[in-house]
Amino acid sequence: MLKNIKITICYDGTDYHGWQIQPRKKTIQGVIEDALYLFKSKRIKLTGAGRTDAGVHAAAQVAHFKADLDYPENELLRALNGNLPPDIRIIKVETVDKEFHARKQARSKIYQYSICNAPDITPFETRYALYHPAPLDIRKMKEAASLFIRKDDFTSFSSNRLRHPVKNVVRSDIKKQGKMIFYTVEADGFLIYMARTMVGALLAAGRGKLVPGQIDRLFKEKKRSPLTPTAPARGLCLLKVIY
Amino acid sequence: MLKNIKITICYDGTDYHGWQIQPRKKTIQGVIEDALYLFKSKRIKLTGAGRTDAGVHAAAQVAHFKADLDYPENELLRALNGNLPPDIRIIKVETVDKEFHARKQARSKIYQYSICNAPDITPFETRYALYHPAPLDIRKMKEAASLFIRKDDFTSFSSNRLRHPVKNVVRSDIKKQGKMIFYTVEADGFLIYMARTMVGALLAAGRGKLVPGQIDRLFKEKKRSPLTPTAPARGLCLLKVIY
Repeated sequence: MLKNIKITICYDGTDYHGWQIQPRKKTIQGVIEDALYLFKSKRIKLTGAGRTDAGVHAAAQVAHFKADLDYPENELLRALNGNLPPDIRIIKVETVDKEFHARKQARSKIYQYSICNAPDITPFETRYALYHPAPLDIRKMKEAASLFIRKDDFTSFSSNRLRHPVKNVVRSDIKKQGKMIFYTVEADGFLIYMARTMVGALLAAGRGKLVPGQIDRLFKEKKRSPLTPTAPARGLCLLKVIY
Repeated sequence: MLKNIKITICYDGTDYHGWQIQPRKKTIQGVIEDALYLFKSKRIKLTGAGRTDAGVHAAAQVAHFKADLDYPENELLRALNGNLPPDIRIIKVETVDKEFHARKQARSKIYQYSICNAPDITPFETRYALYHPAPLDIRKMKEAASLFIRKDDFTSFSSNRLRHPVKNVVRSDIKKQGKMIFYTVEADGFLIYMARTMVGALLAAGRGKLVPGQIDRLFKEKKRSPLTPTAPARGLCLLKVIY
């Protein structure tokens, strides 16, 4: 009997060309589909909650696939992990309603961006944080972050014009912990590069290149501004998908 | 004027063939000597406090080299880091007495070995810890670890017979922190594979394969025992070199 299987996946995206399967490139989706192939001896298509860019990490990405499985979930989990490299781990396998769809039913996603704001970054942190040794005005960054909490057209904070540019950002906050700065953002959806471009704006605010008050104007312009460069992928991690 | 320069280095050893320079292999020493070459336009030999095996990390390895430098230390630090990959960072540059020798004057070294003793290890921990999901008896491991505090011939805990097999281990303790187990060991010197073989013995004690009381006998045998396999490199980190 065909079952609908939901899997939750943790990965270090450093050495991958992002989530989405691509010919002749090592991608998270591709490597997991290969592991499924080794287990089921047939090609099974995985549907992810959303794409993550090359180099972006996930603490809990979600995907689903349909397959006839007579095994208990835990056995599938162990078998898949046995066929996966250590930088990708399946952390949960669940049999779900046949209506469950990892992308369409995702109500929101939470991303976290990590910035190492210190003179030095260690080799143990460098895969998971942006290294930004220059001073950052945390107060300004917090103010700017709060201005992103809105339902609006986020075209100015994406790579280009997209079909559904209105997103509802319900959480956007900055926290400083020692030498690290963490930005947490939750929305019902993210445009391409949206999270990283918002971080670009926050960094510009922290460096005094952008007055938080200018953010309203950026929204209205509906095009990318040189004030908001896309922050590097390495600092970004998909924390959670909410259903 | 020829100066004697001491550098302190932090590295993620995962993608390297260890510290020592080798032809056609990427090694920590080799990559730092390349960075010095880019800076000084000549080959400068680096002398490390000791070799670390392929895959072993360092929080603070030490090395020295002789060069004519007119720059302040901080400038050399920045220039070297600019020419180094992110998984190797120079964390300190000091001009020292011309008698200073990174290896000969090291009084002791401290290593730490990390074990993830839980059903799962995340992709963010897997580079820096041994994954050991099976139960481990911490009390037995602590007892075994304490028996390593001695000045003795460590031949049984090395890869083969070496010229100076007597080492003085002054610290050897096990600490459990959540799902992690940390083993810290300090000695005036370490034979090849010594730290990892001692960890092998501790794991055997934790799994009930070796009674701590057998450790005395292993020392007397002066040869490797199947009871003490070499633990994988990934969990080992050179924490500190003491002068």
